[in-house]
Amino acid sequence: MSGSGGLRLGVAGLGTVGAGLLKLLAENGELVAARAGRPVTVTAVSARDRKRDRGISLEGMVWEDNPVALATRDDVDAVVELIGGSDGDALALVEAALAAGKPVVTANKALLAEHGARLAELAASNNAVLAYEAAVAGGIPVVKAIRDGLAGNRLSRVYGILNGTCNFILTEMRATGRDFEDVLRDAQTLGYAEADPTFDVDGIDAAHKLALLASLAFGILPDFDSLQIEGIRNISAVDIAYADEFGFRIKLLGVAERIDGQISQRVRPCLVPADTPIAKVDGVFNAVVAEGDQVGRTVFEGPGAGAGPTASAVAADIVDIAAGRGTHAFGLPADMLMAATAYEDSMRRSSYYIRLNVIDRPGVIADIAGVLRDQSISIESLLQRAGPDDQGTAPVVVITHETSEGQVRAASAGLQQLNTVLEQPHLLAIENF
Amino acid sequence: MSGSGGLRLGVAGLGTVGAGLLKLLAENGELVAARAGRPVTVTAVSARDRKRDRGISLEGMVWEDNPVALATRDDVDAVVELIGGSDGDALALVEAALAAGKPVVTANKALLAEHGARLAELAASNNAVLAYEAAVAGGIPVVKAIRDGLAGNRLSRVYGILNGTCNFILTEMRATGRDFEDVLRDAQTLGYAEADPTFDVDGIDAAHKLALLASLAFGILPDFDSLQIEGIRNISAVDIAYADEFGFRIKLLGVAERIDGQISQRVRPCLVPADTPIAKVDGVFNAVVAEGDQVGRTVFEGPGAGAGPTASAVAADIVDIAAGRGTHAFGLPADMLMAATAYEDSMRRSSYYIRLNVIDRPGVIADIAGVLRDQSISIESLLQRAGPDDQGTAPVVVITHETSEGQVRAASAGLQQLNTVLEQPHLLAIENF
Repeated sequence: MSGSGGLRLGVAGLGTVGAGLLKLLAENGELVAARAGRPVTVTAVSARDRKRDRGISLEGMVWEDNPVALATRDDVDAVVELIGGSDGDALALVEAALAAGKPVVTANKALLAEHGARLAELAASNNAVLAYEAAVAGGIPVVKAIRDGLAGNRLSRVYGILNGTCNFILTEMRATGRDFEDVLRDAQTLGYAEADPTFDVDGIDAAHKLALLASLAFGILPDFDSLQIEGIRNISAVDIAYADEFGFRIKLLGVAERIDGQISQRVRPCLVPADTPIAKVDGVFNAVVAEGDQVGRTVFEGPGAGAGPTASAVAADIVDIAAGRGTHAFGLPADMLMAATAYEDSMRRSSYYIRLNVIDRPGVIADIAGVLRDQSISIESLLQRAGPDDQGTAPVVVITHETSEGQVRAASAGLQQLNTVLEQPHLLAIENF
Repeated sequence: MSGSGGLRLGVAGLGTVGAGLLKLLAENGELVAARAGRPVTVTAVSARDRKRDRGISLEGMVWEDNPVALATRDDVDAVVELIGGSDGDALALVEAALAAGKPVVTANKALLAEHGARLAELAASNNAVLAYEAAVAGGIPVVKAIRDGLAGNRLSRVYGILNGTCNFILTEMRATGRDFEDVLRDAQTLGYAEADPTFDVDGIDAAHKLALLASLAFGILPDFDSLQIEGIRNISAVDIAYADEFGFRIKLLGVAERIDGQISQRVRPCLVPADTPIAKVDGVFNAVVAEGDQVGRTVFEGPGAGAGPTASAVAADIVDIAAGRGTHAFGLPADMLMAATAYEDSMRRSSYYIRLNVIDRPGVIADIAGVLRDQSISIESLLQRAGPDDQGTAPVVVITHETSEGQVRAASAGLQQLNTVLEQPHLLAIENF
């Protein structure tokens, strides 16, 4: 309910999101002003290439070649960082703005996952807001939902589909039966995957987002380095088909949960029961599920990327700042955030999917069962099929009862040593939400 | 980021939600204080029966026999109204608190749907916050999501499953094939429906919530009287089965949308394609979908009622108030809210499901088709089945192409006049999201 003069923004980065934000402010500027209680204008911008046609007007905006200079301009009240990258100009700009006591809005998950702890402290000590709704799950206002909307809850778990590229690829693989590399090329052609897809398909982008969600949910310092991360490169069409057969979908999930007072954070492809809400989220959509002691389970779903959705999230932060609605970056005063003790991955319990390629001869199932028995792993289902052509090999799929990750990894190593097992076992956890 | 002294609450109403809130504050008080930046305490309470055992401690809280007296107590900084009802004590208390410049948190959808326009103005003129996250969709923080999280968007439509009782009944009817009255009795036994289920099953509760969502989404004054409301009493097991057969689910939906600059608001049972997110929301869960020009479609799902979820939403508002994060009640300054022009129901276009019970003799389909043709309604599918036993009657189900509600109502009247048609046609709109 703040009033008086307008809020003057310096916007750094005019790529997809930056251009989307300027378009949003041009189209919905009056509405934003009404909701914010005062006008919001962009007074200065900075980007790599001044001459590029972005299909938006930069009229009346000062151009800065050096983005960091935006932080200290007298005509900039708040900085919007849309450069990207966990270091370099993005970091320098955010640090400079916070140091100058100016609020910062950013969509930069890498920056916050890597440096969030320090930046939250910098923001607090300069009494400046650090807002990043756009950094997690694009247009879904899930940062506010968890930080403000569920503020009365002790959260036990937060998880979700945090990378639209991977979800698109897995959805397409299931729909068409095609393999990863093939579908990735399509995704690149369609603009859903970048030329270098590493950050997306190797789970790093999802892990950045999960680190932020975990911080908000549990009041801990973002700790990217403690995350277990596995991408989707090794998922094959046959895994997706077998998962289907057993009533599961394969999704790249980020899961953060409190176990025995410690925090487990992992991003990895896993099997989820086909009838759970998260299993039904297809294509480039994102979904986040938060479980609280008072509220139970809430689900937030929507577009996880793209110019419009990301600009929508950035605009929401801008309105909050213009209206004087500040919050601690991670929901608690920076000095109250705890360093989380990471739950030991090997102790984590769940069921597992194990796919083997074996030489099709008598005794092979007995050998496999023996290795599992030696690790005290009991078998829930086992499927052996005739192999392809007449190569003398056959696929075997095992669904285990609940066991520990340590036990299943030991079993996997044991299975690989059997001379009837032809390649490294394909191992996927089953998340039973 | 507010600090200093604690926030002292006066809580009126100690039913399910009130007791849930006291329990939440007892369990998570430290967390709430940390997130709010200061302690939150309940200094005074009021309820009908002082002696009732609610399983919660009222130690240290002053008891007021008259809830309205909470508004003016010196040791009450903010009032939490959980009495319910659109008038009487609830209204008097909220008015008195706002008039005294004290923030109000309420879960009372009826009160706000009926008197929201006036109360928002009263709040604004006394510079007091009026917060009601718990009034819509229980524990799902959808008021904040639409008001703050999607603040950069011009919304075109907001819709959802807003009544858990009706959704439970419809889900059970589909799962068991049983009829409405039968399942309602079960729901009453389970505590999912009240002894007098009118507010729920006749769509009034959902309509209260929709009026608030529409106000937030479109910047209009809540206008309960302009809503078209129809409940689920007339839905029968056969309608649900036929809907299934055509690939639809029957849901009680609240839909508010902008059409040609006017606002259409309706609550009614309708058919939705089985593969849409909203069709998959089963049981007592609620879901709200918001469509914005920048973000596209976002979906919020979770528990729509119950002590914990509703207390969670009330606590979120309390934290906002304690932290000094105030917002206009309906997202815009009260004097900027527009009186909406209601879109004429008869002009609204959609496909329709029409079920008839006819005398099974030659020419009956020709008669039906003739009536529809006379209203320029074209048929997408038509299904005639053999009737039950040997009564000489048969069910006929028609799915129409898109037409107007006016045309389909005229056709329905025409069909009813055919002497081969035995009862009033069963008419349900198909919402194609």
